[in-house]
Amino acid sequence: MENRWRWIIEWLTPESAHLWYIKKILYSGKTKYQEIDIVETEMGVHLLIDGKTQSTEFDEFIYHESLVHPALLTHEKPSEVLVIGGGEGATIREVLKHNVVEKVTMIDIDDIMIELSKKYLLKWHKGSFNNPRVKLVIADGREFIEKSPSASYDIVILDVTDPTPGSPSNKLYTYEFYKSVYKVLKEDGLMVTQATSTSFSAEVFATIYYTISKVFPITRGYHVFVPSFLSMWGFVIGSKKYDPLTLSEDELKKRILARNLRNLSFYHEGIHRALFAMGKNLLELIEKTKRLSTDQTPVYMPI
Amino acid sequence: MENRWRWIIEWLTPESAHLWYIKKILYSGKTKYQEIDIVETEMGVHLLIDGKTQSTEFDEFIYHESLVHPALLTHEKPSEVLVIGGGEGATIREVLKHNVVEKVTMIDIDDIMIELSKKYLLKWHKGSFNNPRVKLVIADGREFIEKSPSASYDIVILDVTDPTPGSPSNKLYTYEFYKSVYKVLKEDGLMVTQATSTSFSAEVFATIYYTISKVFPITRGYHVFVPSFLSMWGFVIGSKKYDPLTLSEDELKKRILARNLRNLSFYHEGIHRALFAMGKNLLELIEKTKRLSTDQTPVYMPI
Amino acid sequence: MENRWRWIIEWLTPESAHLWYIKKILYSGKTKYQEIDIVETEMGVHLLIDGKTQSTEFDEFIYHESLVHPALLTHEKPSEVLVIGGGEGATIREVLKHNVVEKVTMIDIDDIMIELSKKYLLKWHKGSFNNPRVKLVIADGREFIEKSPSASYDIVILDVTDPTPGSPSNKLYTYEFYKSVYKVLKEDGLMVTQATSTSFSAEVFATIYYTISKVFPITRGYHVFVPSFLSMWGFVIGSKKYDPLTLSEDELKKRILARNLRNLSFYHEGIHRALFAMGKNLLELIEKTKRLSTDQTPVYMPI
Amino acid sequence: MENRWRWIIEWLTPESAHLWYIKKILYSGKTKYQEIDIVETEMGVHLLIDGKTQSTEFDEFIYHESLVHPALLTHEKPSEVLVIGGGEGATIREVLKHNVVEKVTMIDIDDIMIELSKKYLLKWHKGSFNNPRVKLVIADGREFIEKSPSASYDIVILDVTDPTPGSPSNKLYTYEFYKSVYKVLKEDGLMVTQATSTSFSAEVFATIYYTISKVFPITRGYHVFVPSFLSMWGFVIGSKKYDPLTLSEDELKKRILARNLRNLSFYHEGIHRALFAMGKNLLELIEKTKRLSTDQTPVYMPI
Repeated sequence: MENRWRWIIEWLTPESAHLWYIKKILYSGKTKYQEIDIVETEMGVHLLIDGKTQSTEFDEFIYHESLVHPALLTHEKPSEVLVIGGGEGATIREVLKHNVVEKVTMIDIDDIMIELSKKYLLKWHKGSFNNPRVKLVIADGREFIEKSPSASYDIVILDVTDPTPGSPSNKLYTYEFYKSVYKVLKEDGLMVTQATSTSFSAEVFATIYYTISKVFPITRGYHVFVPSFLSMWGFVIGSKKYDPLTLSEDELKKRILARNLRNLSFYHEGIHRALFAMGKNLLELIEKTKRLSTDQTPVYMPI
Repeated sequence: MENRWRWIIEWLTPESAHLWYIKKILYSGKTKYQEIDIVETEMGVHLLIDGKTQSTEFDEFIYHESLVHPALLTHEKPSEVLVIGGGEGATIREVLKHNVVEKVTMIDIDDIMIELSKKYLLKWHKGSFNNPRVKLVIADGREFIEKSPSASYDIVILDVTDPTPGSPSNKLYTYEFYKSVYKVLKEDGLMVTQATSTSFSAEVFATIYYTISKVFPITRGYHVFVPSFLSMWGFVIGSKKYDPLTLSEDELKKRILARNLRNLSFYHEGIHRALFAMGKNLLELIEKTKRLSTDQTPVYMPI
Repeated sequence: MENRWRWIIEWLTPESAHLWYIKKILYSGKTKYQEIDIVETEMGVHLLIDGKTQSTEFDEFIYHESLVHPALLTHEKPSEVLVIGGGEGATIREVLKHNVVEKVTMIDIDDIMIELSKKYLLKWHKGSFNNPRVKLVIADGREFIEKSPSASYDIVILDVTDPTPGSPSNKLYTYEFYKSVYKVLKEDGLMVTQATSTSFSAEVFATIYYTISKVFPITRGYHVFVPSFLSMWGFVIGSKKYDPLTLSEDELKKRILARNLRNLSFYHEGIHRALFAMGKNLLELIEKTKRLSTDQTPVYMPI
Repeated sequence: MENRWRWIIEWLTPESAHLWYIKKILYSGKTKYQEIDIVETEMGVHLLIDGKTQSTEFDEFIYHESLVHPALLTHEKPSEVLVIGGGEGATIREVLKHNVVEKVTMIDIDDIMIELSKKYLLKWHKGSFNNPRVKLVIADGREFIEKSPSASYDIVILDVTDPTPGSPSNKLYTYEFYKSVYKVLKEDGLMVTQATSTSFSAEVFATIYYTISKVFPITRGYHVFVPSFLSMWGFVIGSKKYDPLTLSEDELKKRILARNLRNLSFYHEGIHRALFAMGKNLLELIEKTKRLSTDQTPVYMPI
C-alpha cells in the first residue's frame, strides 16, 4: 500500500465528509478574516477557506464561467462591472474576456488573500490583476456598495464565501444588501451571486432566491455541477430589465462572437438554457420557501 | 461532541473518498456475486454493493426516474420492457407507472439481492415485484438476452453495477452485448443503460457512448446530478428509430398525461432536454474518445 | 488498492481517533443500557460498547489476566468472589482458574449483553457461564452491593464501562459506592477496579485512586499496555489487609502452583511487581490529585 | 460542531490507522532522504518522518529518557558517547545531563533535518547542538562507524527511523552493522538501539534482539509505553561487560546523584527494572524468534 498520510476531511454535515489526499502543502495560515489552505490534491492546486473547498485548478473554470457568462451575455452591453470577492482573480479573468467591458472594479476584504493569489494562483488569475481595465480595492464589500453612487454599474457579481456565523460574507446575502446592489446598478443593470449548493443546502439557495425576488423584477436561479464541490452549485440573477431565459441560442452565439469571447472550456450557447432547468423537487422547494434573509435574521449554511 | 463511530469510507480514487456516518446497520453480508451493505445514513436507507453506493432512500428517485422516463417517453408505445439488473425494484416501479406497458421482464443474477430488496427496500420497490405485469427471472443477463428471440422488446433497460474487474456486470458493457440487445429489440425499439459518472469516470462514459454508437443508428448521452453519487450520473440511449431530442415539451406533456404518469418527483417535461446538455469539456471528450469496449478488451472503472 | 469501506472511527478526543477496518459485522444494535457492536477487525472479534473498544479476541487476555490475578494472588485464600460487570464472561473465566475459588457471583445489568456474549463471544467466556461455581444475577451492581449482607466476599472485582455522563456505570466509581464495597468485603478482603487509561485519562485514574484511598487502608494502582486500547490501562486495588507489593516472586510462584493456575498467556510472577511501576510524571500526577469522586460530583471521562 | 479539516492519517497496518488533527502546519517538505512534516496536534509540536510519528512535544521525554538513561547508568563511567541519528537533538540533550560524559559525537545523514530541528524543535534540543561537548557530523552512520578506529566509544546510541524498504536506516539493523558497532566500543562498552514496537511489530523487535545477541555477550530488551506511538516501544542493549539488570535501585540512585542527573520527567531508579519486564506472550515470542537480520536479508517493518 502506498502511504498517504496528509488529508483534508471536508465536513459537509456532521454525518458526511469528503476526504482529499494532500500531495503537497503550498500554504496554510490565517489572515485577519479567514483560514486559508492552498494545497495540491488530485484536483491540482486546491484552495480551501475555513476548511471549505473554494476552487481547484482542474474545475474552477466550470464555476467561474457559469458565474460570469450567463449574466454578462444577458446584458446587451456590459461596460462597467463590479466584482465583490473572487479573490482568486478568476472571476475578473472571465469578465475581461468580454471585449465590451471597459472597467472592472474588484473589491476584496482580504489583502493577504490577494497576495496569496498573486503568489500561488497564477493559473486562476492569469495576470488579470495587472490588466489596465481592472481596479482593485481592498475594502468591505457591503460598505463599498453603500457608499457608491447610484446607477454606477451595468453588472454586479457577488463571488463571496458561503454565509456562516462569524464569516465576513454574512451581510452580503440579505435583503438590505440586495437593495443597495439594486441602487448602484444602472436602469438596465443586473446582478448575479453564487448561492450555495442546490443539493445539500437547497433551503439556503431558495432563501437567497426569494430574497432577491423581493428586490428585483426579474429573478432567475440556475445551477451547475462542480466536481470538487461534490454538488450542483447554485447562482441567482437579479435583473432590472433583461431576462436570461429570453435569449435564443442564435442570439447567444452572435454575442459570443461579437465580443470575441474565446477560450471557454465549459460554457457555450448550447448549455445556457439547460443551466436554468431544475427537477420537480427543487422547483417545489423554491416555490414553497418564503423566507427573507435580513440583516436581523440572515440566512446561514446548515452546518 | 456527539459520538459517531460507524462509518463508510467510500473510495472514489486512491486519493479521495467520501465518509458516510452509519446510524444503523440493517444488513451486511456476501452473496455469491457481491458484497452487500444496507445501512441507514443521512440519506436514509442506503444500499452499497462492493463498497459503492448503489442508491439511497432520499435520492433514488432522481436516478430511477432519469433512467426510465426519457427512454419510455421517447417510444410511442412501449408495451414490452426488459430490465436487466435493478435489484432494488425501483426501476420496474418507474416502468410500471406507464399504463401502456403491458409486460416487464426483469432479469437479475442475484436472488439473495432480490430477497434483501423485498425485506429491506420496500420504499424502493413499493410492492412492484408482486405486480401482475412483472415477470422476474433469476438469470445471467447476458445469457438471457443471447437466448431471447429476436425483436421481443420495445425497450431494454440496463441497470447494472459499474464495470470493474471481477464483477458480474463486466460483460454487459461491450460491443458484442449491445449487438445482442439490438437483436432482441423490435424495429422501433430502444435501449438505455446507466453509463457511470460523467465527471470522475468520463472516459468510461465516453467509451460506452462510442460503443453503443457503433451498434445503433441513434445514440444520445445524458446525465443528471445524484447527490449520493456526489457526481453527475450518465446514461446512454441507443435507438433504432426514435430520437429523444426531437420531442417537444408539449409532446412530452401530452404523453405524460396520456399514460397517466403520476407521482414523479424529479422528472418533468421541462427538464427533459436539459438532461442531454453538456459542457464543452465533456462534449470534446466524447468527440475524441474512439474506444470500443469489447469482450476482449472491456471498459473498466478507473479504480 | 484493495477496497475497504466499513470502518470504526473510535474517537479518543475531539482531536484524535483510531480507525479500525471492519472485516465483518456480527452484531450491531442497542440494548436498554448501551449500544453494542460486535465486529471482526485485525484484532479478531472486536467488541465495542457505545463506540468504545471493550475487548478484542487477540488481546483480551492481557486485560482480563491483569484485572484478576494480581488481586486474587494477593489474597491468601479467595473463596467467595463477586464480579460486577464483565459481560463477556472472561473475568469469571480467569477467576475460575483459581481452584481455591468456591463461588463466583457475577452481576450484570444488561441481560441482552450476556445473551450476545453467549452467542458470539465463546472465545471469551469459554463456557464459564455454565460453570457450577458461577451464579449469574441480572441486576444493577450498585443496588446489589447495597443490599448485600456485610462481610460476604473475599474479593470484589469491578469490570464495568468507563464513567461517562448517562452511562449505567457512573455510580460505580464514587466514594459512596466504594464504602459499600468495603462493607461487603470480609475483614481481609480486597477489591480491584478497572480505572481507565493512565495515559489519555490519567486524571480520572488518579481520581479513582484517591477516592479508593479514602476508603481502604491499602491502595495500589497499576497498569498494563493493552494494544487495542492504544494505551496503558489502569487498575486500582483497595485492600483491608493484604498488600500486593509485599509478595515476593517466590511466594507468587508458589501460589500459582498451589492453585493450579494454568493457561496464563500474559501474567506471570516475573511481571507482577513491574505492573505497579510508573514514570515520574504519573507518580507526580497521582500525588497532586486530591479529587474525590462522589455521587454528587462523580468523575467522568474527558470526552 | 467545531470544524476540523486538516488531519494526519497515520497508517499502522492496511487495516488500522490513527487520526491526528493538525492545528497548524509548521513545515512540510522533502529532503534528499525523507519526507518531513512538523505540525501542531493535541500532542504539541509533532514531528513525522515519511508519515510516521517520530516524536511529539508532550511525550518525547518518555522515549528519549528511556533510550538514554538505562544504558548510560549501566556503564560505570560513560565518557565518550556516539549517537547515530536523533536528529531532533533530544537524545544528545539527555546524554549531556550525565556530567561524566566528556564528548558526544552525533552523526546524522540529513543536514536539512538538523536545520529544521534548530529552527522548529527548540523544545527538543534546548540548545544542545551548541554544547561544547557535542560534535555534530553530517554523514552516513554506517560508513562513519566502519571507518572509526576500534575501541573509540563507551556508549553507542542508535536512534534512527524504523527499517523499511528504501529508508536510509535499513543497514543500521543488521548483524554486519552490529559487528562494526561492537568493534568501535571499548572493552566495557555497550550499545542501545531503538527496536520498534513490542506490540504491533514484535517480530521485528525479536529479530533485532536475536541479531544483537549473536554479537554481544549480554543482550537485554526493554520497552516503555509512548502515548503518541500508541504502543509499547522497544529498545535493545548489547553490552560487552555490564548488565543493566544487576543494578540495584540503591546503586542507580547513587549514580543519578553522583552524575547530577537532573530534570528527569519519566525515568527514575524505581522504574528501571520494570522496563525490562515483559508478558509471557512476548517472552515466548522472543524465545522462539531465531531470525538473524543481515545485509542480505535485513529485517523490515510489517507495513
